Amino acid sequence: MESPRRPRLTPAVADIRRAVRELLPPEGLVLVGLSGGADSLALAAATAFEAGRLGIRAGAVIVDHNLQTGSADVAARAAEAASRLGLDPVLVLSVTVERDGTGPEAAARVQRYAAFDTALAKTGASGVLLGHTLDDQAETVLLGLARGSGSTSLRGMAARTGPILRPLLGIRRAQTWQFCTDAGLEPWSDPQNFDPRYARVRVRETVLPLLETELGPGVAGALARTAETLREDSDALDELARTMLRENWANGKIATDLLDAQSAAVRQRVIRFGVEAMCGVWLTRVQTLAVAALVTDWHGQGALSLPGIRVVRQDGMLIFSVL
Amino acid sequence: MESPRRPRLTPAVADIRRAVRELLPPEGLVLVGLSGGADSLALAAATAFEAGRLGIRAGAVIVDHNLQTGSADVAARAAEAASRLGLDPVLVLSVTVERDGTGPEAAARVQRYAAFDTALAKTGASGVLLGHTLDDQAETVLLGLARGSGSTSLRGMAARTGPILRPLLGIRRAQTWQFCTDAGLEPWSDPQNFDPRYARVRVRETVLPLLETELGPGVAGALARTAETLREDSDALDELARTMLRENWANGKIATDLLDAQSAAVRQRVIRFGVEAMCGVWLTRVQTLAVAALVTDWHGQGALSLPGIRVVRQDGMLIFSVL
Repeated sequence: MESPRRPRLTPAVADIRRAVRELLPPEGLVLVGLSGGADSLALAAATAFEAGRLGIRAGAVIVDHNLQTGSADVAARAAEAASRLGLDPVLVLSVTVERDGTGPEAAARVQRYAAFDTALAKTGASGVLLGHTLDDQAETVLLGLARGSGSTSLRGMAARTGPILRPLLGIRRAQTWQFCTDAGLEPWSDPQNFDPRYARVRVRETVLPLLETELGPGVAGALARTAETLREDSDALDELARTMLRENWANGKIATDLLDAQSAAVRQRVIRFGVEAMCGVWLTRVQTLAVAALVTDWHGQGALSLPGIRVVRQDGMLIFSVL
Repeated sequence: MESPRRPRLTPAVADIRRAVRELLPPEGLVLVGLSGGADSLALAAATAFEAGRLGIRAGAVIVDHNLQTGSADVAARAAEAASRLGLDPVLVLSVTVERDGTGPEAAARVQRYAAFDTALAKTGASGVLLGHTLDDQAETVLLGLARGSGSTSLRGMAARTGPILRPLLGIRRAQTWQFCTDAGLEPWSDPQNFDPRYARVRVRETVLPLLETELGPGVAGALARTAETLREDSDALDELARTMLRENWANGKIATDLLDAQSAAVRQRVIRFGVEAMCGVWLTRVQTLAVAALVTDWHGQGALSLPGIRVVRQDGMLIFSVL
């Protein structure tokens, strides 16, 4: 089997290796989530190189979603590429994507992350590196904006979420292609990445290019920076709300004067998190504001019946009961 | 002079009147900022009607920016329309827009808001109502996103900022046109609203329509909802940071352990607000993070020289000195 040629230290190679280096753990084993596309292939090559320098182990996990004809061949080629790069172990996990009504993208995502958990458990690896780039982050923010669900959807993807590591969130997709060219790697081009039935594909192929034409070439970077600051903001407010819940919410009850003393942002989070913990329902903004009005605009309203829960104000307390 | 015909209570008329009613003060005088365009003309008509029902007074202020030939005629026609609607007093204020390097839109905006202050002082009115719609809000959010300056630019416009009231932030621009048709009013169409040299015009004419085609017709509403929740989030964090500054920042000094105990979002705001108060400089994200690293990633760094200010860590304190 022929080895890929040793890449020259071009700017793309240097940038991607540096990004990987900053997130690698100091010891043990990590896995690269590999599809064979340019992003994950560049990530795999950079990880193999940097792991070697650090003296840690790096393997790969390839998920065959069984959604397209020939997907097993694509997975096998990716596994071969991983081995040529020196990654070891190389796992190929085959999953079945259930049609569960949330859309094929969401269902495939659930199966993929479950497969990563399996791979971590099987190998004892400490983390899975994924190849999401700055462009993916910008697309995520735009898709979130289109839904309008506020900071929850605008926060984009984190560089670390539990064992999941995303070292390339500051790297442009064009750089991963350049890396592959520089390193003599042949990325696989997923036809689903061009299927306009997916909103993400329309954002990538049509919306972002138009935004860059009309508003300047920095738009993708601006969207990614936005995700970063909004993530910090919502983390801070989430933490304040969770602390308040822990200390002041007992048996579905919380004092109205405590809620009244909070900022609107924290008060609404306390209500949402509290209800979610009680019955698993995530209230909409309109429903949350109706509950908040029992505190901030009290004029003797009756009980509120919401999906899964009933709320009433009584003796200076909000009282939540699961329906 | 012929009176405009009494509008039928169509959905557009009812929605806009209700939106105005919710923001009108219970007594005294308010002014409508009138350009003669559909948004402000519908606002003026609805305000005249609702003020009459409430028994309060409503006037109009028209700002002639002297930027286009014939602008005095446009202002005179707007003043005539205001009087026909029964608004009184009607002020026409002529301003000179200085070219100050911030761009013509920003410079005109400064002069316009200064003219509103003048009108408030001259008439003793408690507020100026402006006709910004949900579409204006969505455009503001998209323009902020393209700059990437985080929640500061995404928060959009507030329904209330001091004496400025914006009752139509939940109303679509198409509804203000419909109101004018229903009420027999003839709005002026500003040619600048179609000049593609302005980024806002490109957002309105090209970007938002494409977003609605590709991602669904709810995008403008989603952007406006996003502005609303992000405004709440950043207000809450701003308030926490200002409280911390007031209580713990003295003579350009603040204890590092206090900053260390804060969330990243609050810590960065304390640094930015403190520096802004000392020397009027608004630090970039990169500069702010460099200052924060003196707290969160301390390894004996030397003094940081930033635009207008120098920061050093010494004896458990961050010490800021104006350059």
